[in-house]
Amino acid sequence: MNDNRDVLITEVALRDGSHAIGHQYTVDQVRDVARALSNAGVPYMEVAHGDGLGGSSQQYGLSLTEEMKLIEAAVSVCDKAKVAVLLIPGIGTMNELKQAASIGAKMARIATHVTEADVAPQHITLAKELGMETVGFLMMSHMAPVDKLVEQAKLMESYGADTVYVVDSAGAMLPNEVREKIRSLRQSLTINIGFHAHNNLSLAMANTFVAIEEGATRIDGSVRCLGAGAGNTQTEVLVAVLERLGLNSGVDLYKMMDLAESIVSPILKQPQEITRDSLVMGYAGVYSSFLLHAQRAAKHFNIDPRDILIELGKRKVVGGQEDMIIDVASEIANKKQSSLSV
Amino acid sequence: MNDNRDVLITEVALRDGSHAIGHQYTVDQVRDVARALSNAGVPYMEVAHGDGLGGSSQQYGLSLTEEMKLIEAAVSVCDKAKVAVLLIPGIGTMNELKQAASIGAKMARIATHVTEADVAPQHITLAKELGMETVGFLMMSHMAPVDKLVEQAKLMESYGADTVYVVDSAGAMLPNEVREKIRSLRQSLTINIGFHAHNNLSLAMANTFVAIEEGATRIDGSVRCLGAGAGNTQTEVLVAVLERLGLNSGVDLYKMMDLAESIVSPILKQPQEITRDSLVMGYAGVYSSFLLHAQRAAKHFNIDPRDILIELGKRKVVGGQEDMIIDVASEIANKKQSSLSV
Repeated sequence: MNDNRDVLITEVALRDGSHAIGHQYTVDQVRDVARALSNAGVPYMEVAHGDGLGGSSQQYGLSLTEEMKLIEAAVSVCDKAKVAVLLIPGIGTMNELKQAASIGAKMARIATHVTEADVAPQHITLAKELGMETVGFLMMSHMAPVDKLVEQAKLMESYGADTVYVVDSAGAMLPNEVREKIRSLRQSLTINIGFHAHNNLSLAMANTFVAIEEGATRIDGSVRCLGAGAGNTQTEVLVAVLERLGLNSGVDLYKMMDLAESIVSPILKQPQEITRDSLVMGYAGVYSSFLLHAQRAAKHFNIDPRDILIELGKRKVVGGQEDMIIDVASEIANKKQSSLSV
Repeated sequence: MNDNRDVLITEVALRDGSHAIGHQYTVDQVRDVARALSNAGVPYMEVAHGDGLGGSSQQYGLSLTEEMKLIEAAVSVCDKAKVAVLLIPGIGTMNELKQAASIGAKMARIATHVTEADVAPQHITLAKELGMETVGFLMMSHMAPVDKLVEQAKLMESYGADTVYVVDSAGAMLPNEVREKIRSLRQSLTINIGFHAHNNLSLAMANTFVAIEEGATRIDGSVRCLGAGAGNTQTEVLVAVLERLGLNSGVDLYKMMDLAESIVSPILKQPQEITRDSLVMGYAGVYSSFLLHAQRAAKHFNIDPRDILIELGKRKVVGGQEDMIIDVASEIANKKQSSLSV
């Protein structure tokens, strides 16, 4: 399948895109999109809750449809493409990975915070035992300096991952940062390098472009930008840009354009765009899950939620540290008060 | 006004953005947007029909409101910002430029096809006589090789332009091309270099980024992407990216975000996104005005309109040569027929 392809695209509209539609995919929608993607020659497509296997919950958003049914639907129509699943240890479990493999998922992407690769070895080992192509997926890669990122990627490699991804979860990376990080990984690893962008700073395609220049060969895209925040690198546009660069993705441009227009676009209630909220996430470099907390705290302390988010980004606050949000809000309110009273 | 600014932004939502709303701006809308832009510290904003002064016509689309009224409305609320107008000789006239100057427009952007700067000298001379800051605006810059572009930019400089813009009208340029062209201009000219992007290949911010790296100091943006095709470099996002780069645009980020969300977004009936049509324009590198003609011809000859547009791009067909569209369509249909009958 992969012969002569310069870049192997993983389509994430059926996983990351689940965020964009509140996890409301139906079996019919997933089957239609998956069939069209496979027919267009997309080599991999990820299907799962937006937060990966087992993500359906009050905390992360309840899925309309049980995700194994969605995975089955995709597998049933994928003659050529492989179906991938995302697993964030702590949200999903090894049992769910086994189940996904048993119904035909062929790729496992094991995702951890960029500094926490060491929670992944058991899951990577299991995925390999299940015969799956295996990816280490380093989320929030903008939060680690180059040497830390290389160290963590090497861990993923040592656990047996076939590929390691730099994941710009918040859409916060600038092209020069992507260049430096991908270049260092390329020099330090022997496995494939991948890149997953978000478009919060309107730089998803720019960063993808640079990542490919520096040797990344696995690239995530989402058709019609269907993804968390401002969405990902738009797949059908990526296919066009790769053609213009003379690089072979093995994907049919016209078919991708057509499925974007006639199958995916009607699923979206509202087209993806860069709104104030998604922009501030990318600018601050924080998880989108912080937004609602910051807005509540801002209201309570009568301050701007953006000030909170930007401060959280500076302090490199990560998921699970949501209690810091109130502390930061309180500090900002106090500072504002004392500067007013001077 | 321009002290210490590394980059001077010209906001084009009230001109290029006019395309995105079918030239239906009202006086109230323009006044509200202009006031907010001026308050946010945007130094220049362009106000005119999408095709420049005098563009309102059956051929280019009729404006709801007479454009001089829109220019007056913007001028009336711009305490700090300067109002610019676009003039494409052949569409607009010197009389309209005089009128715009008399009601307070302070910048004239004289636009020609990239190989036709020599139609601009009278208009540039007039603009300077009127005391206006003057820009030469080289449209469809992707269609000229570097040496031709430099030659044409030098003509603009020789006529007295203060600034010359590389204009990627079709959103067709790739970052390496932008780098080469801006670098060559920077080496060859003494006046300011500007860059105007379109987002049809999702590369507007990437190309803007590269243009700035290579010495462009005048950059066009459109708030909420309001522009022809897939829109321009999104201004509020550009301001955020410049801040992250440590470059001073003199524009208040929060105010830009807020006006995008609360003043501009409600004007748009449909958010800007990269659709099949805008993508194919960028991929083919042709004027968006070709689209409707190509679709009609495709229907007549029972072929794909994209094949026509891509062929037109290869042949570097320009505005005014619309009669070529039927010829190209006929050739493609004949080829298809003969390959079927083999």
